[in-house]
Amino acid sequence: MKLAHLPSELRSAQMEIDLIILFTKALQLDNMLQAIAPSINQNTKVLCLLNGIGYEDTIEKYVPKENILMGNTMWTAGLEAPGKVKLFGSGSVELQNLLPEGKETALKIAEVLTEAGLHAKYSDNILHSIYNKACVNGTLNGLCTILDINIAGLGSTSVAEDMIRTIVGEFASVAAEEGIALDREKIINNIKSTFDPNGVGKHYPSMHQDLIKNNRLTEINFVNGAVVRKGKKYGVPTPYCSLLTELVLCKEEILGAK
Amino acid sequence: MKLAHLPSELRSAQMEIDLIILFTKALQLDNMLQAIAPSINQNTKVLCLLNGIGYEDTIEKYVPKENILMGNTMWTAGLEAPGKVKLFGSGSVELQNLLPEGKETALKIAEVLTEAGLHAKYSDNILHSIYNKACVNGTLNGLCTILDINIAGLGSTSVAEDMIRTIVGEFASVAAEEGIALDREKIINNIKSTFDPNGVGKHYPSMHQDLIKNNRLTEINFVNGAVVRKGKKYGVPTPYCSLLTELVLCKEEILGAK
Repeated sequence: MKLAHLPSELRSAQMEIDLIILFTKALQLDNMLQAIAPSINQNTKVLCLLNGIGYEDTIEKYVPKENILMGNTMWTAGLEAPGKVKLFGSGSVELQNLLPEGKETALKIAEVLTEAGLHAKYSDNILHSIYNKACVNGTLNGLCTILDINIAGLGSTSVAEDMIRTIVGEFASVAAEEGIALDREKIINNIKSTFDPNGVGKHYPSMHQDLIKNNRLTEINFVNGAVVRKGKKYGVPTPYCSLLTELVLCKEEILGAK
Repeated sequence: MKLAHLPSELRSAQMEIDLIILFTKALQLDNMLQAIAPSINQNTKVLCLLNGIGYEDTIEKYVPKENILMGNTMWTAGLEAPGKVKLFGSGSVELQNLLPEGKETALKIAEVLTEAGLHAKYSDNILHSIYNKACVNGTLNGLCTILDINIAGLGSTSVAEDMIRTIVGEFASVAAEEGIALDREKIINNIKSTFDPNGVGKHYPSMHQDLIKNNRLTEINFVNGAVVRKGKKYGVPTPYCSLLTELVLCKEEILGAK
């Protein structure tokens, strides 16, 4: 579904494309959309399944708002070779139209994806799911990366909960400006449930793997950084997200991440 | 001058002590004052020369406010053996009474210290000097420690200045509540002058040496942490100082610092 990888004749402006599923790394999204812009016409629907928040701002530069669908997925996949992706276990997809008039399309896309075995369903409040997932990434990823520790190690410290609580609070305040009511305590308890050293806790979040292990650029600008940008837009202070973003960007430069 | 190290007969409640100079590590101050409390009477002056801010709150628990003097020193010293301290190069001491009625005493103490070759002088605005010095420690120490980088390395990144600017802003806002007008631009330029990789820049701040190199507890609670406590007292937000303090405390726990 990554059109940039399709043969060039399929990317010509003449081609009618019904649906584009965006599934790049955060940092590649804008370039990707720019590359396929000639193939996007007024009937082309665009479904975004990236991790993180605020991609609609980027997508809106290239796609009319009524054609945008947002979603997230619990499918886990690995790249076996260029163009060869393998799915692990089972998963699901949730999606929703950005504007109310897109609901019929959203239901239809969910049906098509489900027929393909991808367990897709329409969501009444997809931004709520996206924010919920982003809260987990927005706390564990940045903190474990800057502190060079796995999830259980972070969770074992006496100050972890206060940092997590403040960051989740900033996500929730920004989400509230978009009409999304996050349940802070539920999210915090969900995050704390990952601390178990015999479970998820023994893992280092993907951002730690990206930056500390492999010196790759991170997605911080599309998680905590997105909250900072939204906070500025709505006049909501987001200082913890701001400093955490700056520290990770600083570490990227120090390590010469690419 | 560390009374806790004097023979026990000198620490008896009967002894009249004119002047106590506090010069412990930040973390030892409260215990030290508790230990010597029986020797502090209504005529005993107490001069604090520790790095950091806000020690007056601790000292006031044991000493009447009119007997407290605050100061700082540019003398550099090394401990050669227990009780054997060696001064390096030259230095100076600045000091001031906490309350106006203590000025005569402050002038007298400066005179005595100067007669002893310590180049002490009375300051009209000692808290200004203390805050100025604390701004340098409050930015470079915490950031270089958490990012595991020397001063020049921090200074070479594109986001360092914004982080430093925000932290200095929090120090200045809290200082303003105490009637101290800090010159933010001058302080920021002063901090930036340390970035030169051929000068101070090649050094790791003492907090980095304490925590990262030697797994010792840091003074973060008496620099950025003190600004957070004062901010709460005055209703001034200090989120950058707060997160930086929490990250350093977290790292202390992760490394099992003692």
